[in-house]
Parts: sequence; structure tokens; C-alpha cells
Amino acid sequence: MTIKEEAHKMKLQSPKLAACSNELRNTALERIAQELQSHREEIFAANRKDLENAKANGVSEAVMKRLKFDEGKLQGVIEGLRQLQDLEDPIGKVQILRELDEDLVLKRISCPIGVIGVIFEARPDALVQISSLCIKSGNCAILKGGRETAETNRALFALIKESAEKAGLPQGCLVQAELHNEIDELLTCNKDVDLLIPRGSNAFVQYIMNNTKIPVMGHADGICHTYVDVDADLTKAARIIVDAKTQYTAACNATETLLVHRKIAERALPQLAKALRDAGVCLNGTKEAMTYLGDGETTGDGETTGDGKTTGDGKTTGKDKRAGRIMDEEDFATEYLDLALSVKLVSGVEEAVDHINRFGSHHTDAILTENDETAAYFMQMVDSAGVYRNCSTRFADGFRYGFGAEVGISTSKIHARGPVGLEGLMTYKYQLTGNGQIVADYASGVKQFHFKNLK
Amino acid sequence: MTIKEEAHKMKLQSPKLAACSNELRNTALERIAQELQSHREEIFAANRKDLENAKANGVSEAVMKRLKFDEGKLQGVIEGLRQLQDLEDPIGKVQILRELDEDLVLKRISCPIGVIGVIFEARPDALVQISSLCIKSGNCAILKGGRETAETNRALFALIKESAEKAGLPQGCLVQAELHNEIDELLTCNKDVDLLIPRGSNAFVQYIMNNTKIPVMGHADGICHTYVDVDADLTKAARIIVDAKTQYTAACNATETLLVHRKIAERALPQLAKALRDAGVCLNGTKEAMTYLGDGETTGDGETTGDGKTTGDGKTTGKDKRAGRIMDEEDFATEYLDLALSVKLVSGVEEAVDHINRFGSHHTDAILTENDETAAYFMQMVDSAGVYRNCSTRFADGFRYGFGAEVGISTSKIHARGPVGLEGLMTYKYQLTGNGQIVADYASGVKQFHFKNLK
Repeated sequence: MTIKEEAHKMKLQSPKLAACSNELRNTALERIAQELQSHREEIFAANRKDLENAKANGVSEAVMKRLKFDEGKLQGVIEGLRQLQDLEDPIGKVQILRELDEDLVLKRISCPIGVIGVIFEARPDALVQISSLCIKSGNCAILKGGRETAETNRALFALIKESAEKAGLPQGCLVQAELHNEIDELLTCNKDVDLLIPRGSNAFVQYIMNNTKIPVMGHADGICHTYVDVDADLTKAARIIVDAKTQYTAACNATETLLVHRKIAERALPQLAKALRDAGVCLNGTKEAMTYLGDGETTGDGETTGDGKTTGDGKTTGKDKRAGRIMDEEDFATEYLDLALSVKLVSGVEEAVDHINRFGSHHTDAILTENDETAAYFMQMVDSAGVYRNCSTRFADGFRYGFGAEVGISTSKIHARGPVGLEGLMTYKYQLTGNGQIVADYASGVKQFHFKNLK
Repeated sequence: MTIKEEAHKMKLQSPKLAACSNELRNTALERIAQELQSHREEIFAANRKDLENAKANGVSEAVMKRLKFDEGKLQGVIEGLRQLQDLEDPIGKVQILRELDEDLVLKRISCPIGVIGVIFEARPDALVQISSLCIKSGNCAILKGGRETAETNRALFALIKESAEKAGLPQGCLVQAELHNEIDELLTCNKDVDLLIPRGSNAFVQYIMNNTKIPVMGHADGICHTYVDVDADLTKAARIIVDAKTQYTAACNATETLLVHRKIAERALPQLAKALRDAGVCLNGTKEAMTYLGDGETTGDGETTGDGKTTGDGKTTGKDKRAGRIMDEEDFATEYLDLALSVKLVSGVEEAVDHINRFGSHHTDAILTENDETAAYFMQMVDSAGVYRNCSTRFADGFRYGFGAEVGISTSKIHARGPVGLEGLMTYKYQLTGNGQIVADYASGVKQFHFKNLK
């Protein structure tokens, strides 16, 4: 069957999965956990093949780390499967219960979206996480994983599908796409696929967004900011900025731009620059900012101000890269995903907000200040999914928000915004129960609505 | 300024409108109500010009009725403006309040979407309704009305904009587009416009959906069904079906297909057919259904079975049209928006559900039955925004649901579904307040999240 045919069949089957009880869906999750555990050696063997292929293809060490599916990752996904079982059933929550007139009752209840297409690069643990979130939320899913972990994905998917169906979930509620051209086919299934969730690089997500009529949930870029206000506690600030930039540079919620209040630049910037450079960060900035940052070269006395690693003769390594460059206005829409940071001075919180709303990607932005009024202004006016005070932008994550797991982070304002857990995989339907009521009676004034919420 | 420039400026200004108090937004709504009242003669004069132009262009009587903006329509929109003031403020509702760790508090609050583009055909009252919903919800709006009521729209918009700004809302929070080519320009503003709401014909909405990357909220077609079950009360059924089909045939929530349980066809269909034909409805159906429906011709004794109007000699008028035609399977995806109905027999609720999920547009579908179990199955399994029992599909409407007003009806499952009122114009943002917390401490295990909901 082609993906188009699979999607059409799945769409018509999807109400059956939506009707399965929470108990049944939890049984399926538990069965998946057990089968993954008992087939661990097969999974690791498949992963070893992927790693060998990757090595042969010259894949970088950083990416290899993401491809690896070892005991730690396995125990992580199994723990996730157990946590999901403990979460409240997201299906059938009564959101509105309202009597419109005598014997005419409107109920709005939560229900699954239907058919979800998930396209992700690398990271085999994402396959387990996302398919289990779909099962818990009663959504059918078409999953397409990255080529680099084709063997691992195949092994994992076979176990997940078999466990789900053996537990009693409807046949065909999960489908795996394996061929690269099936991505383009999936993108055309707008009649049958209700939502696409792409996870991968900026270019990859942009490609998906630009080539489908299916609603897409996710984000392309993550240009996050941290603004150090005139009333900031600089000791906190240095720790937070180093974490926001370096704790995991490849993440979308890493800070890419540092904004500093001009009044404290002379005092704050050298201090922040030292902390960042000690952590290996290259600082780029406006001409004005650079005057306070120095050029990142060693001072000659062996003190490190460069990439944080001094060579035997006291010189910084990679000086050219580390020295930083002078930035123009338009350079500030840069997502490094690397040990580099843009720096700019601003006249206050208004200019900081304006810069963020103009150059940011509406993902997550932080203010560091001890002033409540300034913080309130920032959190009201910054037009982003996450607005933070006195903590690291790296907290933008479904697990850290207490959602259990996430399918991704959305920078859209439609449907779901920020880290998306089970709730973002739900929609609702209106159920209206009457006793022969017709609209003509209300239009003519024979009857009147009385609108009474019943709970 | 071009629409693109207007949209970009509006996007950057939108947080200012979002920060306006409910009191200020209500003051603006009241001022609009008063200004519309005191400038009624200007508005009516503008509308007379539109009606004259329409008449000269040979516009049909049915459409003329929609273009007309008279005292009744004016009082309707003024009442709507007053009702909106009484509704609870949709901004700033706390949806999540959770302590993640000591001194690290996550809050999710509702906030406006930002910039909304509204494109609608005819109906000047829609302009007032939609712009007032945008003001109440704190959203900036770019409005493009139909050419047929250009004069009326211009008069109304000028009053609305002036009143809003004089009341203290930010300059430029409402913009009117007047040129037809500005629609295409608006469709390209995906960087600055967060949501498009098109209201008009199927072809018009399809065009919008096919030509923009901006999320679109609304519906193209409304193929609604009413299924008469074996356990239906046929007296209720006849009244409901006549209402669902004829109370306002041009509406998207009018029933277009009647499904009848095969076991009761012989008894039910002639009875339902008589009621429908008395109301002027032409019945098309499968070959099987037609055997129970007759051909709609007069029986010769002067009894009307055709379009409900007998001529002096007892013959039905428009017999050819009214006679109905035999339908093929694929004809069932037809939206008549007229006094015509498709009829099919089914073996039971399972087949009815299957037909509806296959040929419907996921808008609103009803079952008529006295059997609780059958009704529950239908309401669970039909994959539509509205699933009804024993009442007319025509109830699918924001006012009738008690929402006060609606911006439209959505058949999407993403964001908002069914009639969309204020709630559908909102999104949310996550506010995280800390005291220096960094992610590295949680990643390394130095600290643990404890996730405690605070209310």
C-alpha cells in the first residue's frame, strides 16, 4: 500500500482508536515497555549496524552521540512509557456542559485529533516517545524516522506495533514510512492527515512547512534572548547566561543573543564575557558592545580569555575564531547552535523588548532583573511562547514543565504553543442532545435559549 | 502604506493592544455602539448606494437581502456590542500555575493571538461583529470586506476605527483593506499575520486555503447529515428534518444528506418525503431510496407532493427540477445550499457513521433515535465538530451555543473546532519566574524538579 492509501485507511479507522479505553491504551504502553526490555539485544544489535554505517559515512562524533541507542536510552524510554501510564486520561474531558434550553444540552468533550504524521531526523528514542504519546492520546500515527538510524527504527517500530496490536488496539493504528520519497507523499495527504510534527534541523522543518497544506506543529528556528537589566544581580546573571548558552548548544532553547543595559555595560560586560569565554564561547557584537568585550585574545600573562583552553605557551587556541566579529543589525537574526553568542547594548527594557519581537523567533526569552515592574513589563510585552525571569532559557522543555514528555516545541500561536505534551495532541467535539428541537422555533421567537452552565 | 507594511507595523504594535485593560476595551466597544447609533443615517445612506449598484449589476434578490443594512441589522450589531462588554475578560486567565522547584514557578496565561486577517464576502454586519470580537480579545485586525458593500463597509469601518482610537486603544490596531488585489498581498504576510479567517463561498474559502502559508480558520464546505435510526420517533424526525434542510438553506449547517435505516424505509420515507416536499424540497437519492420516495409528481387529485405549490390545475410547478434524480455513490459529497436533499438507505448506525466520515465535511451531523446505546455509538464515532441527537443540525452556531457571537465555524481539528467565539481568538504564553536557576543543576542531578500545582 502507498502512504496515501495507508493514510486514507487510517483516517477512516481513527475513530476506533479514539474509542479505546484508557485502560486498554495503558495496557498497550506497558506491553511495549516489556517487549522493548526483553528484546534489548536485538535493538542494540540493530543500532550497532547503524553506528557502523554512520562511521563509514564519516558522520561527526556529535551526531553519532545522538544516533546511539544504548542501555541508558532504553531505560529512559521505558521509564517514559511507565510515566505516561500514570498520567490522567486526556480523552473525554468535559470542557463545557451547558443547558441551552429545556432538554437541549450542549457538551464539549476532548477527543484525539485523529491522524498525525511525524517526521524526525536521527534520535531513535524520539520514535518511542512520540508513538507512545500518540497511543496515550488515542491518535493514529504515521512515523518516518531518519535514514541514519533506519535499522534501529525498524527494530523499535516492529516491537511497538506488534505490542500495541496484541494488547488490543486496532490494527493499523501505527504505520512506519521508510523510504525517503514517502515524505513527499505524506505531505500531500491533507485530506487524511490532520497534523504534521516535524523534528529536525531548521532547513528540514522549513521544507516541511513550505511544501504541505497540512497544519504543521513545531518550530524552524530558535533565536532565544537573555536581557541583563540595569537591576540585574550580576552573580546570578553570569551563571544563568553560561547555562543558557552552553548547557546544550545544539538545542533550540539555547540563548543566541545577549542584550545588556547600556548603563551597566562597563561593569557587567567584562565580567559576563570572562565567564562565557571561560566556557569556550565566542562573542560577536555591535561595535559598541565590542569595546567592552575586548577581542578575546590572551592578555599575554597566560590568563585565558579565549576559548577557555590555554596551550602550553599561554596562547589561546583557535584565536581567529574566538576573537569574535563586529555585527550589523541584520546579523542578529542568527541561530548559532554553537559556542557563539551575539551581544548588543540597549537603552532599557523597551528597546530590549522591541529587539526581541523584531529579531527573535517567538520561542523563549528571559529577563534578568530584581525589579518587579521591569520584569512585569518584559513578560507582558515579549511576544514569545516562553517569557522568563531570572532563570535559564534552557528550561523550555516538556519534561521540565512537568508534562511527562513532549512531541516538540511550537512557536506557532495557533493550537499549541511552547512545549507540547498530551494536551497539544487533543481537539474537542461538541455533542448536542435534544428532544426534537428545531431552529425555526428560536428564530421566530416561539422559544428562547436560556444558557445555563450545568457545572 | 502597502498591506505588507501595515501588517509588519501592526505585528510589532500588537503587544500594546494585548496589554490594554478589559475596562479600556469595553469602553471602546461602548463608544462604537454609540457612534453607530448616532451616525445611523450616514450608514443607511451608504448602504442605499451599495444596494443601487447591486441592483444595477443584476444581483439576485436573495443576495440583496444579505447586503442590506437596515435598522434591524443596526440594532442587532449594537446589541452584540453591549453583550460583548458583559462577557468575562478572555485575557490573562491562569491556565497552569505550577511550582517546578523552590522559587521556580511556571504560569500559563491566555493572551491574544496577535494579528488576525479577516476576509469576508457581503454582509456588512459581519464587519462590526468580527472587529468587535477582535477588540474584546485584544487582537489587531486587518479587515477586507466584499466589493458589493464597499460603501457601507467604509462608513462602518471609519466609525469603528475612530471610536476605538478615541477610546484610547493604540493607533493602527484596526486596518481596512479595500482593493481586491490587497487580498493576495495579505495572503503573503505569513511573517506578520498569525491567523486568517475567511468567510464566504466554498470556492472563495478554498482559494484562500490554497494560496497562503498563514493558518486559516474556517470551513470550505458544510455537508451535514441527519440519520433516521430504526428507533427514531418519526413525528419528531419529520419536523427536525424539515428545519435542518429548509430553515435557512444557504447556511453551512443545513442538512444536505438524509440517511434512513433500511428497516423503516417503507414506513418512514413516504412520510418524511411528504413533509419535505410540502416545504418545497427536491429529493434525490439512490435507486433503492427512490423506490420509496416516488418521483415527486402530483398524484392527479390535486394533492401536492412536488415543490409544495400547486397551480390552478392541480399540477406541481417546476416538475422537472422537483422530480429528483437517481444518485451515484460519489454524488453524495454534494452541498446543495438549496431546497434539495440527498437520500440513502443504510443497514444501521455503523453504515451511517461510515458514510458520514467518508462523504461528510466533519462539520455537524445528527442522529434521530430514542435508543441511548445507538446514540452513544454515533456521537463517539462520527468524526465531526458537532454530533447531535434528536435536534436540528441548524443549531451549530456561536450564538445558539451561548458564545455571544462567532467569528466563524471551523472544520479544522487544530486550534478551534465548531463555532468559534472569543476563546478561539486566544492563545497562551508560559511565564517562568526563577531566582537564578540553571538547567545544568537539574541535568547533573544536583537538583530535582518537584512539580506542585499551586491551584
